[in-house]
Amino acid sequence: MFIRLGYEIEFEIPAPVAMVSMLSVHPSRVPDLRAPDELSIEPKVALTNYTDHFGNRCTRFVAPAETLRLRNATLIEDPGTPDPVAPHAQEHPVGELPNETLLYLLNSRYCEVDRLSNIATELFGGCTPGWGRVQAICDWVNSKVMFGYQHARPTRTALDVFTDRVGVCRDYQHLAIAFCRALNIPARYATGYLGDIGVALTPPMDFSAWFEAYLDDQWWVFDARNNTPRIGRVLIATGRDASDVAITTSFGAATLTRFAVLAEETTGPPVPPLGK
Amino acid sequence: MFIRLGYEIEFEIPAPVAMVSMLSVHPSRVPDLRAPDELSIEPKVALTNYTDHFGNRCTRFVAPAETLRLRNATLIEDPGTPDPVAPHAQEHPVGELPNETLLYLLNSRYCEVDRLSNIATELFGGCTPGWGRVQAICDWVNSKVMFGYQHARPTRTALDVFTDRVGVCRDYQHLAIAFCRALNIPARYATGYLGDIGVALTPPMDFSAWFEAYLDDQWWVFDARNNTPRIGRVLIATGRDASDVAITTSFGAATLTRFAVLAEETTGPPVPPLGK
Amino acid sequence: MFIRLGYEIEFEIPAPVAMVSMLSVHPSRVPDLRAPDELSIEPKVALTNYTDHFGNRCTRFVAPAETLRLRNATLIEDPGTPDPVAPHAQEHPVGELPNETLLYLLNSRYCEVDRLSNIATELFGGCTPGWGRVQAICDWVNSKVMFGYQHARPTRTALDVFTDRVGVCRDYQHLAIAFCRALNIPARYATGYLGDIGVALTPPMDFSAWFEAYLDDQWWVFDARNNTPRIGRVLIATGRDASDVAITTSFGAATLTRFAVLAEETTGPPVPPLGK
Amino acid sequence: MFIRLGYEIEFEIPAPVAMVSMLSVHPSRVPDLRAPDELSIEPKVALTNYTDHFGNRCTRFVAPAETLRLRNATLIEDPGTPDPVAPHAQEHPVGELPNETLLYLLNSRYCEVDRLSNIATELFGGCTPGWGRVQAICDWVNSKVMFGYQHARPTRTALDVFTDRVGVCRDYQHLAIAFCRALNIPARYATGYLGDIGVALTPPMDFSAWFEAYLDDQWWVFDARNNTPRIGRVLIATGRDASDVAITTSFGAATLTRFAVLAEETTGPPVPPLGK
Repeated sequence: MFIRLGYEIEFEIPAPVAMVSMLSVHPSRVPDLRAPDELSIEPKVALTNYTDHFGNRCTRFVAPAETLRLRNATLIEDPGTPDPVAPHAQEHPVGELPNETLLYLLNSRYCEVDRLSNIATELFGGCTPGWGRVQAICDWVNSKVMFGYQHARPTRTALDVFTDRVGVCRDYQHLAIAFCRALNIPARYATGYLGDIGVALTPPMDFSAWFEAYLDDQWWVFDARNNTPRIGRVLIATGRDASDVAITTSFGAATLTRFAVLAEETTGPPVPPLGK
Repeated sequence: MFIRLGYEIEFEIPAPVAMVSMLSVHPSRVPDLRAPDELSIEPKVALTNYTDHFGNRCTRFVAPAETLRLRNATLIEDPGTPDPVAPHAQEHPVGELPNETLLYLLNSRYCEVDRLSNIATELFGGCTPGWGRVQAICDWVNSKVMFGYQHARPTRTALDVFTDRVGVCRDYQHLAIAFCRALNIPARYATGYLGDIGVALTPPMDFSAWFEAYLDDQWWVFDARNNTPRIGRVLIATGRDASDVAITTSFGAATLTRFAVLAEETTGPPVPPLGK
Repeated sequence: MFIRLGYEIEFEIPAPVAMVSMLSVHPSRVPDLRAPDELSIEPKVALTNYTDHFGNRCTRFVAPAETLRLRNATLIEDPGTPDPVAPHAQEHPVGELPNETLLYLLNSRYCEVDRLSNIATELFGGCTPGWGRVQAICDWVNSKVMFGYQHARPTRTALDVFTDRVGVCRDYQHLAIAFCRALNIPARYATGYLGDIGVALTPPMDFSAWFEAYLDDQWWVFDARNNTPRIGRVLIATGRDASDVAITTSFGAATLTRFAVLAEETTGPPVPPLGK
Repeated sequence: MFIRLGYEIEFEIPAPVAMVSMLSVHPSRVPDLRAPDELSIEPKVALTNYTDHFGNRCTRFVAPAETLRLRNATLIEDPGTPDPVAPHAQEHPVGELPNETLLYLLNSRYCEVDRLSNIATELFGGCTPGWGRVQAICDWVNSKVMFGYQHARPTRTALDVFTDRVGVCRDYQHLAIAFCRALNIPARYATGYLGDIGVALTPPMDFSAWFEAYLDDQWWVFDARNNTPRIGRVLIATGRDASDVAITTSFGAATLTRFAVLAEETTGPPVPPLGK
């Protein structure tokens, strides 16, 4: 399956401001690209690409004081299979987890493991460890939290989600992540493209958030918001929580004025545009 | 100057539990060691050393269900000079900061930059950028927060410090770090040994926390708690906040029953103990 | 001046639910009424009126499981003068405040005086006590907080307003109230009708919130949201904060489906409807 | 049974400060007094007694800038029977609750009913309504929260207790009260004397907190901290939470330097001291 990916984002910039974007496909998916994945910025500014502490491809630049347009359109090949389900995948005792996963057991800005630890144990401590427990967490979060874009709030933490029971996709994942970590299951936040491939609904497109849990020696996709295997996720970045993997971070004022994301199935690799 | 370093920590462990410790001198100070820096654990358990995402030396092991003793005694050579003061050190525009410092501008568990951003701007936005501004932050925090071990609370965040105005050394640093980041000055949490070398007071010894701010192409030590240059800091670890660099993290129940830390000047390298 | 007042509110009620409404004009304004002020409810339910601890007229009833309509239309005479301004009004030393005002110095759900106390002192402790200080508080809140209905959030507290700097009218008042109380100025939350009489803008009508501060032996109207004297406020209720004076409180599920409020100048008392 | 009651409280007052105390036995217990219940203050200051919105006897005065001593010793007759237990007491549907109890269903500073509502329903929504449900709440809180004076913190709310699981007696009651209210059971905070009459332990004496829940047309004592019927409670004040019924509230700086409370059984009414 081929998926056409793209976005068009505009900001009004009142004064020159440094920005970091995570708008490139994750290094793990680069081999699947069938067209260049190149962030195009108007006006022309000097771009620096780098890889952050978590292994994500970042781009930094200084936006001048005018309208800023970030655009891209690319193509990726995808197996077209739904998120894998492995009901027999086991949790690792902490003592046997790989070193690099331990970070994903700790507190982070939006996942207050310390404050949710007793609650997690009471709700899920009795579940059979392993895949089923992570799934039980997703089921709980999915059934208890009410989705609504009007509930979007950048400072909402996992504890706020637990008490207020409303949110957008990132909020669902933050709560599920905090619960997993409290139970000693490494969990990390993921952001990327997720079209409506294979699903009836067509919500307004946005980048999407899901999470990954570490079981049976690998990271697995879970999604407490959609809570059903989906086709066509294209990973952009993983981190401890949304703070680490914001699509764009501006270190000063920048007003978002337009936002469009595309991720849809296409029948084959397009003829490259003339002159490229 | 030579500084004798050591600690003795005991836990009661009710059931086998995985632990991670950050009890080794930071790699940047290893060249200064004049005796082996080896964590000794009773009972004998298998230890694994590794370096975390932030460059700290960590040790992990599974503690059995009995009394656990972590001990060490080593010797380090130190210039014996106070923390450097560089009143002319400049802030970097974000666009010119090294890639690897950008992480230290973001939110973290105990440093809610998002919620303290306006406050930081109101309090310190008018200060001349650079060393003086970081020092103004330290002066403010130092004068406004009341120290007291009875105020220790593991879940207290920078915002809590800002409202409640009480805390222990970590709390002072968290608030100062959050203010720095809100003003686009990279700041990271540091933990290590800090004896009472050159100061009149002799508080009960503990590990200490301070922070580092990035100015003029390097990280500089600041300490909003003591707020005066000190002699003999020996760095153990740096991270985004206390969550990243806990001296010990136990992934299950462990009751601290004894805690002693030593960091004192000594006249010269000791005769190595027999048979070593 | 005569002001026509009214509202029409609808709920969908999934199961019988007890409700309390504060939809009557405040006892202090009853003498000004020029038409009956009678809550009409469909379907017909038994109503009980009572006066709460704060002196407000409340109505309680049990709503059956169907569409619930609360309606009213009445007429009030109003001096048509703007909110009084008394720049020389003095604060009372706490020791000289009337007993019944002391309650309005304490913490309440959305006004965490305890956590905002130091901040209030730092920001306004140096202002000349009296009217000017309350006005300085209103000016500060008005200039720092950004209004937006999309920022409405029922659990937002004064501290949240202070950090997040967004909100709707109740949020402005909560922060101003908390600051006043922290400075030992009694302050209470007020809710009522506020039309756009004498102002150019015509925002979508809603009930409005303002607050009252106690100076010179009386309660004075302040409004940190509009922050300019207004004509035609018609008080419904006062209390410690929005928790005490919700327009409607339902003790179980009730979904608001329609909400319209009217408060507009009219030329004279209407001919009473036939048969009344 | 006769109970000797008394206290001795000292403050250092740096500058004249207005204070309110709730140090008189509650009006409902005045008929049981067998000696005068008179707050004695050194130095002599003018005292004003008044009854607050909740029916409590309060005393206000302005303390001068010196050592302030509040003292009392009195005697009360008590039935000497344990707190009543009424396992068949019923909850009232909200629609049938007395008007004056409705206040005790609402949010208050330390009891965030809005944020704990879903949690309460999940934990206790399935319990049989009535006495048993309130008792189930007390059992839960009592078993989950760890007592410790070192955990005292004036700004801790019910939600903090729920997450942190530590506290002193007021914290236990706040969480239980919030749960009750979330389930539409009126609950109010109570403070008073509670000696160790009939119990083996002799903890350091302090005033104590408990709460009252409204069932079967009356308020009943519950105590999520001790969670067992006790003998000899002497009520001082009730309110929405600890904010309303602080033993002393000072509207400015006042440092507590001594605190002693007495409540112990005695064999009979004492001979009144000579000359009284």
